[in-house]
Amino acid sequence: MAYEYDRENIFAKILRGEIPNSTVAESTHSLAFLDISPAAPTHILVIPKGAYVNFDHFGVEATDAEIVDFNRMVAKITRDVGVAQMEGGEGYRLITNAGAHGVQDVPHFHVHIIGGRRLGRMISA
Amino acid sequence: MAYEYDRENIFAKILRGEIPNSTVAESTHSLAFLDISPAAPTHILVIPKGAYVNFDHFGVEATDAEIVDFNRMVAKITRDVGVAQMEGGEGYRLITNAGAHGVQDVPHFHVHIIGGRRLGRMISA
Repeated sequence: MAYEYDRENIFAKILRGEIPNSTVAESTHSLAFLDISPAAPTHILVIPKGAYVNFDHFGVEATDAEIVDFNRMVAKITRDVGVAQMEGGEGYRLITNAGAHGVQDVPHFHVHIIGGRRLGRMISA
Repeated sequence: MAYEYDRENIFAKILRGEIPNSTVAESTHSLAFLDISPAAPTHILVIPKGAYVNFDHFGVEATDAEIVDFNRMVAKITRDVGVAQMEGGEGYRLITNAGAHGVQDVPHFHVHIIGGRRLGRMISA
């Protein structure tokens, strides 16, 4: 199969400005905003602006510049919001889901930055 | 605080060849191997060869080349092992933990590639 990007997914609408978001950071290739249904005191989503369905779509097809921009944004946010130990925080978890087995909710690649409390087991049964 | 890298952590020993590993893939800057205590049918760990404690250490301080190499390796593996939908798989989850709140086990940045079954809730209570 080839990945087909659904231009009507909610993150596509956020990127087009059709749906509001609580922006945390924005760069040339990436956007970060608050999760509207937070699972922990800190719960931020980071997405590339490009039309990538999931991580492997992004990791294979994105340009080097997009990949570097995205990784540096995620890292910088963990420090800016104070969950990184470097800033006196107590850590965080990054998660990205793909497909049915990963229980992916929105078909636009996104990384969850979750912190602010001690998280449970890495994956539940 | 500044991050101090513990050269005696188990992944440092793997990188020095002092402890064996079941290698899945290796590149200039990255190494992937099977998790010795798999949480699902597919459970692979990907680490940079550089001495990075966690994701923000890597994402801020690694070179562009290290970041691109790492991301492309993770993406390629999800396809090579068949969990990516692109290869007919049913998806996967990528997780990296930092610090106490993330319940990080080994103080060398690593990404878990988990798949082969439908995973549970993204994070447990």
